[in-house]
Amino acid sequence: MAANKPSVPKGTRDFSPAEMAKRNYIFDTIKTVFRKYGYQEIQTPSMENLETLTGKYGDEGDKLIFKILNNGDLINQTLLKSFDELLSLLNSKGLEVDILNIENEEVGNGNKDRKVSWRDITSKSFEQIFEKLRYDSDDLFELYQLTSLKLGNTVSEKALRYDLTVPFARYVVSHQSEITFPFKRFQVQPVWRADRPQKGRYREFYQCDADVVGSDSLLNEAEFILIYDEALSNFGLKDFTIKINNRKILSGIAEIIGKPELIVDMTVAIDKLDKIGMAGVSKELLERGFTEDDLQKLTPVILLGGGNDEKIDALKKVLAASPIGLKGIEEINTVFTYLKNARLKTAKLELDITLARGLNYYTGAIFEVKTNEVAMGSIGGGGRYDDLTGMFGLKGMTGAGISFGADRIYDVLEELKLFPEDATQGTQVLICCFDKEFENYGFQLVNQLRQQEIRAELYPPGAKIKKQLDYANNKNIPFTIMIGSEEMQRGLLSLKNMQTGEQRKLLVEQVLAELQA
Amino acid sequence: MAANKPSVPKGTRDFSPAEMAKRNYIFDTIKTVFRKYGYQEIQTPSMENLETLTGKYGDEGDKLIFKILNNGDLINQTLLKSFDELLSLLNSKGLEVDILNIENEEVGNGNKDRKVSWRDITSKSFEQIFEKLRYDSDDLFELYQLTSLKLGNTVSEKALRYDLTVPFARYVVSHQSEITFPFKRFQVQPVWRADRPQKGRYREFYQCDADVVGSDSLLNEAEFILIYDEALSNFGLKDFTIKINNRKILSGIAEIIGKPELIVDMTVAIDKLDKIGMAGVSKELLERGFTEDDLQKLTPVILLGGGNDEKIDALKKVLAASPIGLKGIEEINTVFTYLKNARLKTAKLELDITLARGLNYYTGAIFEVKTNEVAMGSIGGGGRYDDLTGMFGLKGMTGAGISFGADRIYDVLEELKLFPEDATQGTQVLICCFDKEFENYGFQLVNQLRQQEIRAELYPPGAKIKKQLDYANNKNIPFTIMIGSEEMQRGLLSLKNMQTGEQRKLLVEQVLAELQA
Repeated sequence: MAANKPSVPKGTRDFSPAEMAKRNYIFDTIKTVFRKYGYQEIQTPSMENLETLTGKYGDEGDKLIFKILNNGDLINQTLLKSFDELLSLLNSKGLEVDILNIENEEVGNGNKDRKVSWRDITSKSFEQIFEKLRYDSDDLFELYQLTSLKLGNTVSEKALRYDLTVPFARYVVSHQSEITFPFKRFQVQPVWRADRPQKGRYREFYQCDADVVGSDSLLNEAEFILIYDEALSNFGLKDFTIKINNRKILSGIAEIIGKPELIVDMTVAIDKLDKIGMAGVSKELLERGFTEDDLQKLTPVILLGGGNDEKIDALKKVLAASPIGLKGIEEINTVFTYLKNARLKTAKLELDITLARGLNYYTGAIFEVKTNEVAMGSIGGGGRYDDLTGMFGLKGMTGAGISFGADRIYDVLEELKLFPEDATQGTQVLICCFDKEFENYGFQLVNQLRQQEIRAELYPPGAKIKKQLDYANNKNIPFTIMIGSEEMQRGLLSLKNMQTGEQRKLLVEQVLAELQA
Repeated sequence: MAANKPSVPKGTRDFSPAEMAKRNYIFDTIKTVFRKYGYQEIQTPSMENLETLTGKYGDEGDKLIFKILNNGDLINQTLLKSFDELLSLLNSKGLEVDILNIENEEVGNGNKDRKVSWRDITSKSFEQIFEKLRYDSDDLFELYQLTSLKLGNTVSEKALRYDLTVPFARYVVSHQSEITFPFKRFQVQPVWRADRPQKGRYREFYQCDADVVGSDSLLNEAEFILIYDEALSNFGLKDFTIKINNRKILSGIAEIIGKPELIVDMTVAIDKLDKIGMAGVSKELLERGFTEDDLQKLTPVILLGGGNDEKIDALKKVLAASPIGLKGIEEINTVFTYLKNARLKTAKLELDITLARGLNYYTGAIFEVKTNEVAMGSIGGGGRYDDLTGMFGLKGMTGAGISFGADRIYDVLEELKLFPEDATQGTQVLICCFDKEFENYGFQLVNQLRQQEIRAELYPPGAKIKKQLDYANNKNIPFTIMIGSEEMQRGLLSLKNMQTGEQRKLLVEQVLAELQA
């Protein structure tokens, strides 16, 4: 036995058979609903070109992108050996083109007779070069900078996917000529973030997104609400709320107060209402540049109560002078009207004007889903964005999308004991032979069962019966069949229900009927 | 429109909806069979600790491992800036522990007054250090080596999974106390190799493996053959061969000739029989250290013809003096005997003693699957290995496994037109509104259809009807429903079969019945 068990990298996880069965149940349930609404699956590569990803997630996000070394052996061979070897390696690592490009780049220009060209740098030893440069510290600086610049450019050109949205935007632009718009796609793949791992935050985790691009119809928003409702109802959740807001309402509010430039500060503050209460929000608003006068206007809007219709009526009055605000209300109202033609199964729908979620990104609807049965952050979110593909030069591509938080849904279903038994059921029956002499009979039987599409196993004959039954129990196999000499002679199989312990002698045909039931 | 479309990294691929549907069909078909035989799915992280992977794939393999930079910003911030910044960065990047460890490491020991400690290196500027070292080239060498060694150790500690076997071995050792043996797992996940991309060879591709560990029963080998037979038959393949060999037979042959030490050379040569013929094989055997005498003994064995029983009889005679060879024959014979109790659906089973496949790895059975309908390399392979987890310190864990080549199976099914239509069918019906005024009616209808579990879409109303029908055609949607004023007034829906062009006026109930059929 190994003294030191090998481990997985921090923030990553193995998924055991029991966990995988549950995860598959979650993903399959969501995918089935996506497909029912016309969404089609795509997959993009795990790695994207570095330039595709950088600059898309802000400075903080950029730092969390996992970069891949171009070539498996470059770093070890370079940084672990002397500078001399490093330089000649640069030459050998397909840097020919770069060398040509910078042929005129030289170090040591101050003095002609100790000038060092790029060709020198890539062909001579460190010592020879140092000597030629006469150990001039300025020149040595320059030498290092030039070399490291070239090296830096060749070290990493690829990075691991940070989310599914930017790769999707890249996909739409790459394939624009083949795609029929509106394009409704879903994608369920892992993403990687070099975040500090902590409870519930991983460096590798699955995202589960559906987006539509090329359609500004608000029917899409209505359908996203139906997708949430249907998928989460299918999981057996009994009480959850889909919150909806609209960026244009937030813009309208900031406009009415006369501080449209402070919209981000305003939404960051009011987004915290749940956590810090109105007193805390007021304090923060004052700190962020709002006046007591502004607060008097804002407070009643933030604390807007009542049902969705009442909120809409109240907002119509408050935002009467703001065309963009009124547009936001109209959009939400349209979505609500559509939904009157499609009864929600379980979801409560709630207009919540404190909802902001990645505001700089969304331009219309904003969604967030929370379960009311378990204390848990949001289990889904999304919204409309007017310019998904602009970052790759394709303008005017409006879209909207939602995401399911699979890890959190897993925890919720676990806590509420909602994973259905048959979804996580593997092998249906284990055949146990008391003796190796029955193995051919056992093998024949297991194959007979499989021909009837029953998931069946034959435990390698000869082991102690306790070991075989433990195997069935640990693998959660509901039935076992014992084969001994008596069974073989009388042609009867001993079928044991592992949960009740009940044991019956049956003919093969009866066993089949029992298992297929 | 973008001038330069963004692209994916060399050797990686996007999978469009049509491709994904076909790939899912392949994976789902194989997974269903794996489950039927008691195999359970697991997943391991995309990244493993570098030490888990290195040294497991030979020197060539090691070079093809994609390494991940520890921290997104390390390289750019270090190598793109001056050496000075690099050094202070080392200090700030959690190198505290390392610094303590090597506090006594110094550069410039030759002369006490210009000694530079690691603390100097990580805190002072390049220029200050150079000055202290008086630009002594030996010291500068040493400085670079020390720094780069430290940097090298911190640059990459993780790498992308190269195959599924080593992570599986690591999984078994990590989870040995939770696992009930024999452990039958399958795994379908991407792997990454920094190989030169070429036709059919990718840098990211899926592997699809099933392995059992902790059981030396030859029933496992028999079941692997049944799994291949069932999965490939389910794809509709009509003519394929499962080749089987046994490492012990190859050992026996080398032993009989009196050159057991040349077993690798022997198998590498005879493995090429298909490609270079017996003349080529003979030439290579001579080059690899065999004599004309050896060839006289080897040739009849290599060219062994007839059915499996005849081959076994002949081998029994040839290997009569080799206990290990006879053991190999006995093992194959046992597998064949088991299979007499389980009729193969389609597969031809062929004992092929030229089959070697990763010989150093396998210790018993060796499998390879080839289709006879299309010119294509092997679409599957595997075998038994006696010491899967020894590399991680857990001894005596015997196992066997097989793999399906999903990309090749995709090409085979495509060429033979074997992808079933319903497996790749997405949306079943598209509802087209002539006018935006019907959209609420259309939305009601689409939801009514979805309540009956029909995959249905409503095209955002208002677009030209040609555009809507093009959408249906491009998305391969088999039916459309047109909604205009006439349809709404008469309560009849106009259902169009997009393949035949046939159009019928039906009641909602009739449409439902039609689509559910």
